[in-house]
Amino acid sequence: MKLIQCLLVFTLSICTTAHGVASESIPDFAIVIHGGAGSASTDSELISAREQALSAALDKGVEILKQGGSSLDAVEQVIRLLEDSPLFNAGRGGVLTAKGHNELDASIMDGKTRSCGAVGGVTIVKNPISLARLVMTETRHVLLVDHGADQFAKTLKHPKIEIVDPSYFKIPAQVKRLERVREKERLSDAEKMGTVGCVALDVHGNISAGTSTGGLVNKKHGRIGDSPIVGAGTYADNKTCGVSCTGVGEDFIRNSVAYDVSARINYMKQKIDKAVSEILNREDHPVRGGIIGIDHRGNITIQFNTVGMSRAAADSSGLRLVKIGK
Amino acid sequence: MKLIQCLLVFTLSICTTAHGVASESIPDFAIVIHGGAGSASTDSELISAREQALSAALDKGVEILKQGGSSLDAVEQVIRLLEDSPLFNAGRGGVLTAKGHNELDASIMDGKTRSCGAVGGVTIVKNPISLARLVMTETRHVLLVDHGADQFAKTLKHPKIEIVDPSYFKIPAQVKRLERVREKERLSDAEKMGTVGCVALDVHGNISAGTSTGGLVNKKHGRIGDSPIVGAGTYADNKTCGVSCTGVGEDFIRNSVAYDVSARINYMKQKIDKAVSEILNREDHPVRGGIIGIDHRGNITIQFNTVGMSRAAADSSGLRLVKIGK
Repeated sequence: MKLIQCLLVFTLSICTTAHGVASESIPDFAIVIHGGAGSASTDSELISAREQALSAALDKGVEILKQGGSSLDAVEQVIRLLEDSPLFNAGRGGVLTAKGHNELDASIMDGKTRSCGAVGGVTIVKNPISLARLVMTETRHVLLVDHGADQFAKTLKHPKIEIVDPSYFKIPAQVKRLERVREKERLSDAEKMGTVGCVALDVHGNISAGTSTGGLVNKKHGRIGDSPIVGAGTYADNKTCGVSCTGVGEDFIRNSVAYDVSARINYMKQKIDKAVSEILNREDHPVRGGIIGIDHRGNITIQFNTVGMSRAAADSSGLRLVKIGK
Repeated sequence: MKLIQCLLVFTLSICTTAHGVASESIPDFAIVIHGGAGSASTDSELISAREQALSAALDKGVEILKQGGSSLDAVEQVIRLLEDSPLFNAGRGGVLTAKGHNELDASIMDGKTRSCGAVGGVTIVKNPISLARLVMTETRHVLLVDHGADQFAKTLKHPKIEIVDPSYFKIPAQVKRLERVREKERLSDAEKMGTVGCVALDVHGNISAGTSTGGLVNKKHGRIGDSPIVGAGTYADNKTCGVSCTGVGEDFIRNSVAYDVSARINYMKQKIDKAVSEILNREDHPVRGGIIGIDHRGNITIQFNTVGMSRAAADSSGLRLVKIGK
């Protein structure tokens, strides 16, 4: 297996780091995770803590896939761990809205059937990714938002759905962050980003993808980004690929980015690396952020045009990567 | 100009009626409207009233385009008229949720810039399509939902945004409809559908698309369908086409239908008629409903695989079509 690492510098000084795994044979399983694109932290303790959290999540995903578990289970369990960590903008660590609350979004998609589920604006659910999966399996709907999503969570009484007080999400780091933004409102787009996501291919050949986020710090109440939008922040189709995105959500919505990766592979026979690279480097409709994906042959791609992105990947041929920042 | 009308019958007895306008030269302007796919009503008074409403909306759109107005204005004004009518499942005539309330969704997109705006779960705004346009122009967001969207509407104090009491939407026909569904819950998917949409190409070569709906009758509180999802229910790109969809929203989300029409034209050089026909007739990932569109050359397509669809179309070469049902 060959690990290609390339640095592409464009006229607009957009920097895209690409990790592509060009595989000769289809690996038994593959998994890729992101912990959000955005600025590269210089706090070594924080970097180390994030590395450990990503590494533990990766181990969990690999363990499930090694044992023949489904990619859906791997994606859900990996994202649950990242949602439970206060270090990422999802679940517990989700950033606060302009009103000082948390509104969490998540989506999950099964590439075997294109079944999908998503939630937006959830305020009392510890693990939005599991609620998204239950929207997929327990309702005829794809997307439930706000009070409707919270109510659905309450009525489910499902062991995976822990209802928490909204104060659970108000961790000091995010309260301070909001105060800083309120005072100065001078954070760059890159600094405001953050999301977690996971794509997995299991030994049965099924691809799944999921994304979970607290959204944009200081966002307007009711704002929904790309994370719970199937086709924008998340997509999975066994015939093409699975994709999870992070970045300026609105860019991903107006360009249907996650589905676009699949469409380019399907209609133009592009390789996943090229499909993602073209989307992140186009000048006419800029897409600011990062994209992770696995194609139907197990090729992993990780690319971003932000200063940094937390990411991790592994597959059955022995690849193992955990990296924070640039 | 040639009006092609074909009847395609498939193995699954899916019936697709296609109206394609194959144009030799690019028309100065073109407009197409749908009033929802679903069952074909046999009530002649209702049919006549809907025809009149569609015809009036078409006239309004044509008037704007003829005078050199923008496709965005045409789309917004046409949809406002349909939202004000109690005869369509949008605005005033929106169906009721399981709790007996109205939750209205809408989206609009400018094909020149791919700018877009959308609202979901709105309860007090007379014209959700105008609120969607203001999300596009007055915020950095694409999608606002629920209380956040209602609050945004209130704070705007914009002449186009009339705040109404939720009772404005509780018209007797929809209250009865909900009661009937509650009693029997035996409506077919086709009977539950309904949405309005409009796509226009203006004399400046700009394509815009918009969609507005009350959603699914008896839907779960907080359910968001495809109508406010850019890429699913609405898409516009001057280089390819504009599209508005109606039908089983979840089918349109999981297959990113509106963007898929654009991707097929862009990546496979398909004609818009073929792109839409392939999506509505595929057996592996069924999409139940109807699609209207205009490509960058002014070709209009109207197709559906439901029993009926209300539709209207016109262009500067003299085409004029208003039809309800089959």
